[in-house]
Amino acid sequence: VIAAVRFEGGRLEVLDQTRLPHEEVWLTLGSAAEAAEAIRRLAVRGAPLIGVVAGCALAVEVALDPGRLEAAALELRGARPTAVNLAWAVDRVAAAARAGGAAAARAEAEAINAEQEAANLAIGSYGADLLAGARRVLTHCNTGALACGGEGGTALAVIAALAARGPLEVLACETRPLLQGARLTVWELARAGIPCALCVDGAAAGLIARGEVDAVVVGADRIAANGDVVNKVGTYAHALAAHAAGIPFVVAAPESTLDPATPTGADVTIEERAADEVRHVGPTLTTLPDVPVRNPAFDVTPADLVTAIVTEHGARPPRGLTPNGV
Amino acid sequence: VIAAVRFEGGRLEVLDQTRLPHEEVWLTLGSAAEAAEAIRRLAVRGAPLIGVVAGCALAVEVALDPGRLEAAALELRGARPTAVNLAWAVDRVAAAARAGGAAAARAEAEAINAEQEAANLAIGSYGADLLAGARRVLTHCNTGALACGGEGGTALAVIAALAARGPLEVLACETRPLLQGARLTVWELARAGIPCALCVDGAAAGLIARGEVDAVVVGADRIAANGDVVNKVGTYAHALAAHAAGIPFVVAAPESTLDPATPTGADVTIEERAADEVRHVGPTLTTLPDVPVRNPAFDVTPADLVTAIVTEHGARPPRGLTPNGV
Repeated sequence: VIAAVRFEGGRLEVLDQTRLPHEEVWLTLGSAAEAAEAIRRLAVRGAPLIGVVAGCALAVEVALDPGRLEAAALELRGARPTAVNLAWAVDRVAAAARAGGAAAARAEAEAINAEQEAANLAIGSYGADLLAGARRVLTHCNTGALACGGEGGTALAVIAALAARGPLEVLACETRPLLQGARLTVWELARAGIPCALCVDGAAAGLIARGEVDAVVVGADRIAANGDVVNKVGTYAHALAAHAAGIPFVVAAPESTLDPATPTGADVTIEERAADEVRHVGPTLTTLPDVPVRNPAFDVTPADLVTAIVTEHGARPPRGLTPNGV
Repeated sequence: VIAAVRFEGGRLEVLDQTRLPHEEVWLTLGSAAEAAEAIRRLAVRGAPLIGVVAGCALAVEVALDPGRLEAAALELRGARPTAVNLAWAVDRVAAAARAGGAAAARAEAEAINAEQEAANLAIGSYGADLLAGARRVLTHCNTGALACGGEGGTALAVIAALAARGPLEVLACETRPLLQGARLTVWELARAGIPCALCVDGAAAGLIARGEVDAVVVGADRIAANGDVVNKVGTYAHALAAHAAGIPFVVAAPESTLDPATPTGADVTIEERAADEVRHVGPTLTTLPDVPVRNPAFDVTPADLVTAIVTEHGARPPRGLTPNGV
């Protein structure tokens, strides 16, 4: 069983994802500030998991000092700008704390985690129904238990459900700059016993064009009201290639990723991260140390390239999305 | 002045491109076997440069032992399967050697190098005419003097000519797995004083979609008779994004890259390289050590995504190409 977060007895622990796949190190997050820092440096990453951990961290903070509620909520909300689940989870726990204090905050954080686990299972099942027959699936970044809390995931939950129903091969894109595919998805798939091959991000489009992929399945960090999908940088090129090849491009995400307040992908602030993420791979400097860098963390896949969005309520086309299945 | 090959007095020296940008180390290639090894391990890379170096190496071998001509030609031709210039240059020098011995072989190799230099200048000028007004250009891999011999290049010759005519900013894709963009293009552009920013390959499509790029210019390893372009893996996704955004996608290559004997891109053997290129960046293992890998070195961009092909004879649409400008 893979899990990336533990929240038992009010104690919050997370797996440090920057150390994987070589080491499994657990961190105790004793405050909102420590959680915000872990989120910023990507020790905790993946839109659904960020929400779960931020919610739990707010409950931890409120148990320490109820007077810190509003400041801690603000700090956690600002840890990363793009993921909508983060604000959603923090707001839920903050509202519970205002109404019922530390005990209510902790119960709400535990409820979010439990809901997330149930959502992951449903997403996997609906996605596998949609892609029945797909035997070679490409994915990007990491969308498994490490990204989502619980034991499930979003796109990786679909993949796990497909693998449980028949033979499956996964093509995992390494996902530069931070290599979540190479480090995390490969590690999760190996643990789950699902056959997998790794490729560089630039190889995906050509392999799709050569007929080596039956479907592309990815997660999402935010889905705008018009169905545009904001996801890890590199996703849009895979969507273009899938469209050109006539294979499904499916987005798996919890309902909390839908953002009806944002009309289109163009309205989303795309986080630009540090230049050294691109200049280095691990400790290795790969270029001139002072070269300017463009490092957007996400890109926007237009709704018309998306075959379906799969949430815990089922699969539906991206146009005219409404949140919470209504 | 950047040059990646010296061939003076029958002595063949090349810049070891695996050591850039941190060290400038020159290698003396004393035989066809040494040259083939340097080409295989990418100390010498870039389709035009491979041709120049292989031609010179065959002349070196024939000067040592004329009886080795056919075996050496075979070994050099087989050093990499995809680039058509390699076979073309080796065949030219072999024919000269058969007709006139070692002196004729050396003269032919020197002629190929000189022709390449002249072609690079012409490619740069024609490409800059075509893209007059483009101020933000994206490129992939390395197509400069390091790739082409002489002081010019193909796509980078176009970029240098544009920069000589007005302000220009280059977006250089790092080009996983071997990072020729991060290591070599950034280094060449810095030396030339041309402003440049580096991005991961997966960021290109999103930046193009956001209107941050006026044109894409790349080189080619082989161009099929129908205009399909075989180039460094990752190129096809950039072409899809350029097409979706309505910006030019231009391929700059010498006439020797045109391969009328190959009907379409689907008929080209795509070299699959070693798994450890993907599993590692430099000395750093980025994933599980035994994960299976797909590592195609090239991909195919269909002719209908190519705005123009620019050679030393000018710019023309990709359909119905005939070699040598006739």
